Amino acid sequence: MPDTPNKPETTTTHLQLAADDVTPLRKIPPLDQSFPRSAKITVSDLAVPMRQIDLDGGEPSITVYDTTGPQGVDPREGLPKRRAEWIEARREQAEADGNWSQMHFARKGVITPEMRFCAIRENVEPEFVRSEVARGRAIIPANINHPELEPMIIGRNFLVKINANIGNSAVSSSIEEEVEKLQWSTRWGADTVMDLSTGDNIHETREWIVRNAAVPIGTVPIYQALEKVKGKAEDLNIDVFMDTLVEQAEQGVDYFTIHAGVLLRYIPLTAKRVTGIVSRGGSILAKWCLAHHQENFLYTHFERICELMKKYDVSFSLGDGLRPGSIADANDEAQFAELRTLGELTKIAWKHDVQVMIEGPGHVPMHKIQENMTEQLEHCHEAPFYTLGPLTTDIAPGYDHITSAIGAAMIGSQGCAMLCYVTPKEHLGLPDRQDVKDGVIAYKIAAHAADLAKGHPGAQDRDDALSKARFEFRWRDQFNLSLDPETAKDFHDQTLPADPAKTAHFCSMCGPHFCSMKLTQDVRDMEASGELAEIEQGMREKATEFREGGGELYVEPGAAE
Amino acid sequence: MPDTPNKPETTTTHLQLAADDVTPLRKIPPLDQSFPRSAKITVSDLAVPMRQIDLDGGEPSITVYDTTGPQGVDPREGLPKRRAEWIEARREQAEADGNWSQMHFARKGVITPEMRFCAIRENVEPEFVRSEVARGRAIIPANINHPELEPMIIGRNFLVKINANIGNSAVSSSIEEEVEKLQWSTRWGADTVMDLSTGDNIHETREWIVRNAAVPIGTVPIYQALEKVKGKAEDLNIDVFMDTLVEQAEQGVDYFTIHAGVLLRYIPLTAKRVTGIVSRGGSILAKWCLAHHQENFLYTHFERICELMKKYDVSFSLGDGLRPGSIADANDEAQFAELRTLGELTKIAWKHDVQVMIEGPGHVPMHKIQENMTEQLEHCHEAPFYTLGPLTTDIAPGYDHITSAIGAAMIGSQGCAMLCYVTPKEHLGLPDRQDVKDGVIAYKIAAHAADLAKGHPGAQDRDDALSKARFEFRWRDQFNLSLDPETAKDFHDQTLPADPAKTAHFCSMCGPHFCSMKLTQDVRDMEASGELAEIEQGMREKATEFREGGGELYVEPGAAE
Repeated sequence: MPDTPNKPETTTTHLQLAADDVTPLRKIPPLDQSFPRSAKITVSDLAVPMRQIDLDGGEPSITVYDTTGPQGVDPREGLPKRRAEWIEARREQAEADGNWSQMHFARKGVITPEMRFCAIRENVEPEFVRSEVARGRAIIPANINHPELEPMIIGRNFLVKINANIGNSAVSSSIEEEVEKLQWSTRWGADTVMDLSTGDNIHETREWIVRNAAVPIGTVPIYQALEKVKGKAEDLNIDVFMDTLVEQAEQGVDYFTIHAGVLLRYIPLTAKRVTGIVSRGGSILAKWCLAHHQENFLYTHFERICELMKKYDVSFSLGDGLRPGSIADANDEAQFAELRTLGELTKIAWKHDVQVMIEGPGHVPMHKIQENMTEQLEHCHEAPFYTLGPLTTDIAPGYDHITSAIGAAMIGSQGCAMLCYVTPKEHLGLPDRQDVKDGVIAYKIAAHAADLAKGHPGAQDRDDALSKARFEFRWRDQFNLSLDPETAKDFHDQTLPADPAKTAHFCSMCGPHFCSMKLTQDVRDMEASGELAEIEQGMREKATEFREGGGELYVEPGAAE
Repeated sequence: MPDTPNKPETTTTHLQLAADDVTPLRKIPPLDQSFPRSAKITVSDLAVPMRQIDLDGGEPSITVYDTTGPQGVDPREGLPKRRAEWIEARREQAEADGNWSQMHFARKGVITPEMRFCAIRENVEPEFVRSEVARGRAIIPANINHPELEPMIIGRNFLVKINANIGNSAVSSSIEEEVEKLQWSTRWGADTVMDLSTGDNIHETREWIVRNAAVPIGTVPIYQALEKVKGKAEDLNIDVFMDTLVEQAEQGVDYFTIHAGVLLRYIPLTAKRVTGIVSRGGSILAKWCLAHHQENFLYTHFERICELMKKYDVSFSLGDGLRPGSIADANDEAQFAELRTLGELTKIAWKHDVQVMIEGPGHVPMHKIQENMTEQLEHCHEAPFYTLGPLTTDIAPGYDHITSAIGAAMIGSQGCAMLCYVTPKEHLGLPDRQDVKDGVIAYKIAAHAADLAKGHPGAQDRDDALSKARFEFRWRDQFNLSLDPETAKDFHDQTLPADPAKTAHFCSMCGPHFCSMKLTQDVRDMEASGELAEIEQGMREKATEFREGGGELYVEPGAAE
């Protein structure tokens, strides 16, 4: 393992060679087709990207958080390396300390450009970002070999984030499709993307993804380690695993899911479950432990892994290998025993100034969700929680983006920092482009609903602007302010295709002759003219007369029983 | 208004005449295409319908609640009049008392066939149904002129129900489409259906719907009353309204939305709202009140309305005409003032033994949902709550079935008795057949998630059966146990079309070479053989040695700070 990581340039050649196999690349539609009247703008000397939505009727434009990344770049070239200078500027210090992590700098009181970048995105003070990262309550996943990254922060005192999973498998998908899913998922709002590839070309696929990702990329390295030992879990060992970590850290992966909490003594706790162990990583390690009658090597060599992580500033996403795979198995001892172990490991990682988030379930009925958040906060010392859903029922395969958006919104409102999306294909197959979009939109809804519930400053501005546009029949503004303007407009067109309808002061629900919005305008006019006050006063008297005059409508409590 | 309502037979002629205009009727697919390996069965002398799902692998079949109604009936003929005899059997008593309502009989200690029918559907004692109806905590909407009805109960101590809205408007849709939407929405699980037609043929459309409905039908009579005065709200009066109620009660409508809580003095409270008054009924009455400077005639003549309701056993759905239409307007004084008035009116209706449920919002952020449920329980004396969503954010037009399924699941778990669906077309247009299905499925998910959270007896059986099928790779069982087997199977086919894949012990997510489900089977085999116990014991010792031998992984609290 080199002491000073290679420069990402070395990988570019690789990327270009690969291109020969995958031309022509498919293209996703231009940004302004997905978001009419939106413009990408940049803020401050750090060129923080945002999307500005222009409105009609003299309304001020609305600026929203933007994850779409640089547009129109040839995937063979990869994105501009915007962080290269920031990283070089602190190389001397980092190498002297043997630690590149944002947490390390935060704890030394340094506010990095990455921290300032996140502060601008979240509309908070840079010092607040630094202090949250320093205490481990938030992380900025940012591998120094991923200079293309637009830094973002994950923590419960910031906007709730969402992750989209992509990746090919032994039976499906190509590199070109995965790059497209990366672009497509960030187009709709994915804050991070995990490459869960398990099939062929696993290294090359990841290279293409990282070089074209403006968002943090996460992986589950045990998948590739398993490929290296030809799928035989019992042949795994810490050296093969460390080699895999180095390979992926060199490529620029920003966070690793590491299932170091799957302890041998917890495995028997899963034997009576309805769905046993459903985490792939968890079951790989469980199999290894049982085959060798030894403790999980990721647990016994955890400090060695920490030493590697800090050299690249790769963040831990401590995996929940024993998460429940069904409502029946939710919140059982296997799950919570592992969670407590993840809490111990968090303390160890923090000893090395390595950033940590904690993965969570899975399948959990609504009444058991709060307990997950409470246990995680208590045992994992407020390290950010990152949950898959949770799905709130098992009976709707084909609609698990909805069964899980319910649980995701709830746990997000309770303090979960990032929500891993679930697509309609969950349990059934690999998501295609439409599934990825459906999953991302459902999770943007869950995350935003949670931000509203948490009272996040400014979160409601977009709701208010859209509702005002709705009330004033500014149809195009209503569409353009929505998460998916194209779909909103298409739905409106299905009933009222005519272009005038886009400015009409009625809709297909009530038709032109009667409209409740119109009535409200009358009420406002009457209020403005003072007429309403008169009526109100007059009616208070009338109402009193009415009640006194035998028109008694009030009954004593209990009279109806 | 006749003292003894006509028999429904009289309407059949009307229906057949109408048929000439609408042939040929479109057909929805046969039941077994939507639900493979399901059989409709009936239970007890009352022939209570249920759907039995047969499974492979010697698993016991699962029986689920069934709303699909009699199949294969020509809509021109209408459904069999299964309740006719039950109704006739109590005619003498009802006419003697001048009261046909289920609440009236319940309070006299009588368990009607309708109550027994509901008890069997809900798997509870008939006496429990009677007592809940008697105290007003549950209702059985069942107009005596709707003998085609399969009775169902709405109350927070029963399964959470969902309503689907259909109905044409001035700008869209035909009778034939509405009958199809009725059949389609109940196919997927709608427990009640509201006909919100506002356009032409409003009477005829409703006739076709009621005669073909095995579920309760609700309407908002003010819409038709408004048509009778040519859309001029100020021309409305109690007599036109009462005529409309008689007309619809004669047809067999089971519940009426009545906006009697929109009081003149509450109207000014809406002037400062972002979206004012968004309820059509609410704005019609607000307009009338302002035009006449008089109190809402539905409020001042409420007892007269009660007298009519009890002659047909039409239930009140007291409308929330001042519900919020945006996140910004949620839980404001206009909304809660009206809610308290609906509580007063509930007491008056109960004085007449008339059944009542209370309508609720609308648009409410997650952190304000519980307050709605708490206020409703307190001020409306536990009358069933029936909410529209609520939508938890305004920013996702085109996806409001999801923004609202989140709120619906939450308020359902808190005690809301029925959830009015929202389709993806909400705010944008009238739902087509696919939108109706998408809305119903999203709400079946919300209602079931709520039933699980409430710990409803047996609610989890279907989840457990499906998860067991998933774990055992019984793909067909997994599909057939789901809310939408066709979609689940189609999604699976997209990645693994081959028929063998339906019995394959792997899926497209991990592929054939590594499967976590397989590992769990190994764990179970080892447990069965006692091998696991040995390992466990051995490992406890190893783990101890390890910790004692310097492999210390535990750090003192605070050590990482």
